[in-house]
Amino acid sequence: MVVNVGVVGTGMIGTEHIESLANHVGGARIAAVFDVDGDRAAEVAASVGADTAATASDVIRSEDVDAVLIATPGFTHAELVLECLDVGVPTMCEKPLATSAADCVKILEAEVAVGRKLIQVGFMRRFDVGYQQVKEAIASGAIGETVMGHMFHRNPEVPPEFGDEMVMNDAFIHEMDVTRWLFDDEVAAVRVLAGRSTPKAHEGLHDPQILVFELASGVLVLAEAFVANGFGYDVRCEVLGSDGTVELSTPRLSARTTVNARSERIPDGWKERFGDTYRRELKAWIDAVAAGTHVGPDAWDGYAATVIADAGVEAQRRMGERVTVELIDRPDLYRRAKGTSP
Amino acid sequence: MVVNVGVVGTGMIGTEHIESLANHVGGARIAAVFDVDGDRAAEVAASVGADTAATASDVIRSEDVDAVLIATPGFTHAELVLECLDVGVPTMCEKPLATSAADCVKILEAEVAVGRKLIQVGFMRRFDVGYQQVKEAIASGAIGETVMGHMFHRNPEVPPEFGDEMVMNDAFIHEMDVTRWLFDDEVAAVRVLAGRSTPKAHEGLHDPQILVFELASGVLVLAEAFVANGFGYDVRCEVLGSDGTVELSTPRLSARTTVNARSERIPDGWKERFGDTYRRELKAWIDAVAAGTHVGPDAWDGYAATVIADAGVEAQRRMGERVTVELIDRPDLYRRAKGTSP
Amino acid sequence: MVVNVGVVGTGMIGTEHIESLANHVGGARIAAVFDVDGDRAAEVAASVGADTAATASDVIRSEDVDAVLIATPGFTHAELVLECLDVGVPTMCEKPLATSAADCVKILEAEVAVGRKLIQVGFMRRFDVGYQQVKEAIASGAIGETVMGHMFHRNPEVPPEFGDEMVMNDAFIHEMDVTRWLFDDEVAAVRVLAGRSTPKAHEGLHDPQILVFELASGVLVLAEAFVANGFGYDVRCEVLGSDGTVELSTPRLSARTTVNARSERIPDGWKERFGDTYRRELKAWIDAVAAGTHVGPDAWDGYAATVIADAGVEAQRRMGERVTVELIDRPDLYRRAKGTSP
Amino acid sequence: MVVNVGVVGTGMIGTEHIESLANHVGGARIAAVFDVDGDRAAEVAASVGADTAATASDVIRSEDVDAVLIATPGFTHAELVLECLDVGVPTMCEKPLATSAADCVKILEAEVAVGRKLIQVGFMRRFDVGYQQVKEAIASGAIGETVMGHMFHRNPEVPPEFGDEMVMNDAFIHEMDVTRWLFDDEVAAVRVLAGRSTPKAHEGLHDPQILVFELASGVLVLAEAFVANGFGYDVRCEVLGSDGTVELSTPRLSARTTVNARSERIPDGWKERFGDTYRRELKAWIDAVAAGTHVGPDAWDGYAATVIADAGVEAQRRMGERVTVELIDRPDLYRRAKGTSP
Repeated sequence: MVVNVGVVGTGMIGTEHIESLANHVGGARIAAVFDVDGDRAAEVAASVGADTAATASDVIRSEDVDAVLIATPGFTHAELVLECLDVGVPTMCEKPLATSAADCVKILEAEVAVGRKLIQVGFMRRFDVGYQQVKEAIASGAIGETVMGHMFHRNPEVPPEFGDEMVMNDAFIHEMDVTRWLFDDEVAAVRVLAGRSTPKAHEGLHDPQILVFELASGVLVLAEAFVANGFGYDVRCEVLGSDGTVELSTPRLSARTTVNARSERIPDGWKERFGDTYRRELKAWIDAVAAGTHVGPDAWDGYAATVIADAGVEAQRRMGERVTVELIDRPDLYRRAKGTSP
Repeated sequence: MVVNVGVVGTGMIGTEHIESLANHVGGARIAAVFDVDGDRAAEVAASVGADTAATASDVIRSEDVDAVLIATPGFTHAELVLECLDVGVPTMCEKPLATSAADCVKILEAEVAVGRKLIQVGFMRRFDVGYQQVKEAIASGAIGETVMGHMFHRNPEVPPEFGDEMVMNDAFIHEMDVTRWLFDDEVAAVRVLAGRSTPKAHEGLHDPQILVFELASGVLVLAEAFVANGFGYDVRCEVLGSDGTVELSTPRLSARTTVNARSERIPDGWKERFGDTYRRELKAWIDAVAAGTHVGPDAWDGYAATVIADAGVEAQRRMGERVTVELIDRPDLYRRAKGTSP
Repeated sequence: MVVNVGVVGTGMIGTEHIESLANHVGGARIAAVFDVDGDRAAEVAASVGADTAATASDVIRSEDVDAVLIATPGFTHAELVLECLDVGVPTMCEKPLATSAADCVKILEAEVAVGRKLIQVGFMRRFDVGYQQVKEAIASGAIGETVMGHMFHRNPEVPPEFGDEMVMNDAFIHEMDVTRWLFDDEVAAVRVLAGRSTPKAHEGLHDPQILVFELASGVLVLAEAFVANGFGYDVRCEVLGSDGTVELSTPRLSARTTVNARSERIPDGWKERFGDTYRRELKAWIDAVAAGTHVGPDAWDGYAATVIADAGVEAQRRMGERVTVELIDRPDLYRRAKGTSP
Repeated sequence: MVVNVGVVGTGMIGTEHIESLANHVGGARIAAVFDVDGDRAAEVAASVGADTAATASDVIRSEDVDAVLIATPGFTHAELVLECLDVGVPTMCEKPLATSAADCVKILEAEVAVGRKLIQVGFMRRFDVGYQQVKEAIASGAIGETVMGHMFHRNPEVPPEFGDEMVMNDAFIHEMDVTRWLFDDEVAAVRVLAGRSTPKAHEGLHDPQILVFELASGVLVLAEAFVANGFGYDVRCEVLGSDGTVELSTPRLSARTTVNARSERIPDGWKERFGDTYRRELKAWIDAVAAGTHVGPDAWDGYAATVIADAGVEAQRRMGERVTVELIDRPDLYRRAKGTSP
């Protein structure tokens, strides 16, 4: 069976997903493409032999579309996701699920009304082989009871408009989801710590900065974001347990030795580090759509991330203070068994 | 454009390739499948919605087939490849290209008569990201002039029938191709050294054993095969240059620390280590077929490997002695520019 | 020239130092030994052919003693150090210099009155080859301007009496000194964060816990202590700069590969990790005494650590709150040039 | 007890040993020093407050000397060692024990006549912490039955006079002793393999080159020497067993991350890599002298190394051929229990 995918949004990530679905993921076909920039949409659609649609709704409501991928700017997500739920079409929505907690709740309610999970949120790290090894080590009991975590999100440079809110909504948001997933727990409070910034940081950007998660179980997780580090893209984490630790390492495939130094490569960007991970995410989505099941981060995960990010932005304003994270009760639809699944 | 692939042979590797082409490689469709075990062929074909063919020729000569993948036992390759050349269909042939140098020469002659390269031989390591980093380090001049190489081919266990010839034809053969490719050179002579074997080795198997390559340039490359090592699948190499070295490392994605030890995983088999590499090889092949070009190891590379393997088996019989490798003149069709391409 | 050393205190660390001075450090001789446990003192003295003294003063004031090593319980340090300054004898004082800031100030005043530095405080990490490589990387400018630090102090188990105050005074105190030394800066404020503890922690012990240093320059340093981790002794740090990072790694000398894992050793305790470092510290002290100079952590460093530790204990009581660190003006005697010296 | 050491030879290594004994090893005193260059001897002796002697015999036969350290050029060793045995004084002799097998045999006979082991040969690697970890892994049975070894001896540059014989006698000789010790076995035959040399090698130097050891048990050990590698001093080895492997790694204490690379240091010479190891060797010697016992490589080990080196030089001349190593029967004095002792 081939899954016919309709794509809304042909910016950087949308185009990347289209290329991946067309060239690196079996079982998928790009059926329809829409972007507010029609020329851009036409160009991308042509590259994979797909048609363009006149509106996002045309994509979502097309009879030729089995599944929708939303890759538009975040502020448009809520309305598009709600329309997908209205139609009942399986949907992959890039992060964030919505830019406000209230909109996320509307989505939760709509999906609960549908009665089954249609929405997958684009937290692709859950599909990363390395993160899955970390999850497996925790779930297997190899490190005992989890007691603390350290997360490191390092990026070589950011554009001038990249301020503290973007650190929270575009960088730390991945740490929020990964933390919730690895520890199988909710975030109860956050705190931001920052001090001297690198001279490479733009005005108004605290870089590096620390986001402290306090989980419902009491476990502390410290996440560092250093987005203008000048040296490379390096995402790592370490989870401490009562019997040992497990860490996500910088991937290593080869090493060079030259004068007085043996060196391993640091990726230069997210494509090098997570390119395959995005493909694995899309493949898992396509397989789930084909099987009529759901996999990976769901709308609840998207909602939780949005609420934590809101608290995180508040915590950036009240530097050093503890800010609580308040979630609604989790609907039964979103309860799931512990384990290693993404 | 979708490339319709006909597959001849549905043993372990053929089935694996069919699964990869159907599920992990965009742009390909399994069009026809044949195996001497018709039930097996039918089962595999059904799993991907393909048809079965009554004979291998029916696959090769089918109008619905754009490209052929040969994954039958090695002794059948020559005849099948020659038929593919006769038809003029692009073909991926699993190693070996043929089991005798004479048959390989017939293939070279037939392909030269066609006038363009249609055959890709299944030395998949050239498509491995790690090996490509090694190749890039050498080609960039980062380690200076190459002067020596060490290769390590380690495998946890082998079946009882796995004797010295299989070490040469199934294990060392990859080192032959990788050595020729990394050093951009031909093998002029080989020598085998072996001593005490592991008690886990079957009667008649020298394990570990060393195959020494002497390249045309004089460079020595020492390859170790240790196929019943009892601990894991670990393929590594190190290339020494006049300004430094570059090594293929055991891939590392994560690490665990427990009592008094921090440990990194060793893969348990070739699927864990090279699963993605096979997918990359197939994707490159499909893309080249779609573009009407050729990529990766060609018939000459297949011929050279067979000649070296023959010399290697002779060297196993004359343990410790130098055995020369005699190649025919390389036809112009198989000359290519130095660089980093697979 | 041989330096005749008088030792006050023959507990674990005192005995260790005596053994090191006698057997692993050239140029030193144990001249006199005192401990309140006379039998213990006699036994240790006999093992190295030294005499015992009737009182600590007898050691400090002996004409046969060129230098004094104080290794008694911390609460006795102030009085002993002041007597050494009164006599004018070069002195190595194990941490802490004194258990109250007020006593430390008395020592500073007495030493300033002497007019030259006689006191070396036992923060031995400054003499560790690994830490010196970190210091060198920072001082050389290789990582640019320092912007953040992460410290990890991990220990396999602690006795039942080891509570939060001991975490501060015996574990974190090393991180205080190392942070001040590596960043060449003073600590302006501290904050403690703690959450769920390991089930291996005794009642009343927060383990792991985080001590956040805010340096005068604004740089944040996050130090983790995990003293009942159950797996090993592992001290590491990472310093982030505007052009790169430098880290103290777990030392690695060898590695083992067994089923599906390649493992490097984690030390089982401080002797394995820092045994040689203590010897280097003592050797540097003996050389400085012989040369009439001073090396390493001085009384000001001891004072600063005590003030920070006091603030740290306060911060443990006011979990999550920022507690300022107030230092007196630094006397001229304790100003020194930036660089890599211990 | 203080061991009074007489030193014969104040070249580079002799001076280094004198400095170590005086400054880094407790329990030793330099009592007398001789060198054919009297000025040099006087200078070195003065630096440690020792006397000079008029002849080597004066040192060896001095009543004030408890132990002799021989660090003269190799061709003088036999006569000096025989005189030490004649006097009955414990002696540390730098490698080689003697430059001919015949002279080594004379020494063995003289020592057997004495009836106890007085001679320690300067194969210091047995005292290296890393090598001891490797030995311990083997002796503990952690890797099962040993089946193969790889040794790597890499050095950044050599003077113009450093030819193939020096590769054998000054570089590979350490691999000979380490191989015999780690595998607890004798070398039965050797073979040398060499191909293209680095352009940095002087005329007449094969660099890199491979020395293959065939042990009495049949185990093969392949040793690489690459002495003008241009990048650093890197000594490693890997021992393969039936249940796993153990390797001596390049020591790592710290690591730096800069643009797209995380790098660990490669030592720049033997002093950085083995400085502490030499001190541990000397300390073990002094302790054994003080205790009236023997430790480490003995005259038999020195004899075996000389015989293997002679065979190695022959194997360099008969490149590629197997050259047998013929040892006399081992006298009972030199039999010892298996284990981990140096």
